[in-house]
Amino acid sequence: MGETKKSVTMKDVASLAGVSVGTVSRVINNEKGIKEVTLQKVTQAIKELNYIPDAYARGMKKSKTETVALILPSIWHPFFSEFAYFVEKELSNLNYKLLLCNISGGKREIDYIKMLQENKVDGIVAITYSDIEDYLATNIPFVSIDRTYANKEIPCVTSDNKAGGRLAAQKLIEKGCQEFAFIGGHNSTTNTTKDRRQYFEAYLKEQNKKYHILDLEEPIHDLEENVRQLFTSHPSIDGIFTVNDFTALDVIRTLEKMGRSVPDEVQVIGYDGIRLASGRDYPVTTMKQPVDAMANEAVRILMGIINHTPHQLQVTLPIRYIEGPTTKK
Amino acid sequence: MGETKKSVTMKDVASLAGVSVGTVSRVINNEKGIKEVTLQKVTQAIKELNYIPDAYARGMKKSKTETVALILPSIWHPFFSEFAYFVEKELSNLNYKLLLCNISGGKREIDYIKMLQENKVDGIVAITYSDIEDYLATNIPFVSIDRTYANKEIPCVTSDNKAGGRLAAQKLIEKGCQEFAFIGGHNSTTNTTKDRRQYFEAYLKEQNKKYHILDLEEPIHDLEENVRQLFTSHPSIDGIFTVNDFTALDVIRTLEKMGRSVPDEVQVIGYDGIRLASGRDYPVTTMKQPVDAMANEAVRILMGIINHTPHQLQVTLPIRYIEGPTTKK
Repeated sequence: MGETKKSVTMKDVASLAGVSVGTVSRVINNEKGIKEVTLQKVTQAIKELNYIPDAYARGMKKSKTETVALILPSIWHPFFSEFAYFVEKELSNLNYKLLLCNISGGKREIDYIKMLQENKVDGIVAITYSDIEDYLATNIPFVSIDRTYANKEIPCVTSDNKAGGRLAAQKLIEKGCQEFAFIGGHNSTTNTTKDRRQYFEAYLKEQNKKYHILDLEEPIHDLEENVRQLFTSHPSIDGIFTVNDFTALDVIRTLEKMGRSVPDEVQVIGYDGIRLASGRDYPVTTMKQPVDAMANEAVRILMGIINHTPHQLQVTLPIRYIEGPTTKK
Repeated sequence: MGETKKSVTMKDVASLAGVSVGTVSRVINNEKGIKEVTLQKVTQAIKELNYIPDAYARGMKKSKTETVALILPSIWHPFFSEFAYFVEKELSNLNYKLLLCNISGGKREIDYIKMLQENKVDGIVAITYSDIEDYLATNIPFVSIDRTYANKEIPCVTSDNKAGGRLAAQKLIEKGCQEFAFIGGHNSTTNTTKDRRQYFEAYLKEQNKKYHILDLEEPIHDLEENVRQLFTSHPSIDGIFTVNDFTALDVIRTLEKMGRSVPDEVQVIGYDGIRLASGRDYPVTTMKQPVDAMANEAVRILMGIINHTPHQLQVTLPIRYIEGPTTKK
């Protein structure tokens, strides 16, 4: 708790560039009459240190925009829209506004990070798998969900993926399953969601259970084919844990096409706890993420950074097992 | 097409108040030394005319914020999140940002309308059932979905609710239903969604079909009880059209509790076309609203108002029948 890290200062830049702080300031403010060689040295130092030459980093906070950007892969997704709902609700309590950003590929995240540097937004909460590492710096008002960034102290809020993976294995065993499979996908980011598979696998290994792993590289285009192959090779699989609920729904669709009934012959547990809306049924048995608490924590940490108060770098919140229609009662 | 209306000008206010335009300007700019009686006359005239004393209405456009607010009952809802997805996408193409506002009861809509007047956002797209009539004026950059506002020329984008109601009746007849019911709710706003019931009912009347109407006042708390009563009194009902997909899901849940199977004994058609996400299954047979086209039209009209180019006041877009699991094949 309260683990914080100082941001890179103008002094650090001056020191690395071998110039005075005043010169760095003149470069940052685009003043005229700076020698080309000096400009290059300062620019290089800024780049190396990932220095963000904005009001935050200079400790000279300009007027707040009272606006926070929320970056999501897509708002048309029940997990992300639930998260957005709670982030907006919490921000609204604090008289902040929410800028919504659907992304695709990284370009737009960088636009928003630039807005942060230009004081057009006060902070960012982001769920993203894009390659934006180079644009981030330690201690900027940026809070990540699930993903951590190499060599950057970016606060991260996540559900307890380890406990979720373990509990999925326990539940499937309890419900009488004999042969197990993990089905999911992964990408190249450092993402705590990878713990779901690892802790599921570790628990089954401990218990000397037979299991199979189908962990495909994202984006996944041939899930159905892979699931068919898995079940053709191992027809006795009767307990499945998937990396998320949508994968569970896809797997169930393939199983039904193959004439396997869920949950009678094969039981399936997903992860996330998606629903069409508040109060609606859960389409799959799942490890529910505490979306409201995650949203509140993300906002709380972001406000900590914005207001220069101590904040946590890592918050892990408990998951909850939800019995849906894809496991036996 | 191209039907536009001039906004109220400062001249109109001056004329009604019996003062000069210069005096109105001084009142608007909060200048000192204005007589109390003059102040009152001008304030009264502004109120009567619903004059919006901002840069837009004065034709002296200040720098744009390139931000549009989207007001929704809740982003955690598959129809609204799909709509938000497409609005954000279209705004992003135009280099605009989206402010997201979940609402509850009107207060927050008014905050956003004030932001419009204060040039903090360039425009608003709104799906709302709150009592905000008095805060709106003709020709402000405000586009409404489904709802029209009394005595205000607020552009409205909607799907073809009339065709949807009629087509639902036709489809249920085609599929062999004999006795029909409309089940839905309504509120006090002037809302084109009310056409769903009216055109469903009118078509059945034309065809001399037996039907029942269960149209409850929103917010609805006793849908299950009402549905049970309806089916107890009229056990032969075998074709239902609901005001939206969520109502269809609620009705189906009650029917299942009553031991009635859907679609074998009772067929159900909803309205909206909700899905968990893009590419996912439709949980009910439905009249799908063209959400992407509606979002694009709303943005196009808003940009027309913002840029003072001709724009439509009413756009009605075609619905599409989607065969889901709640009607017979």
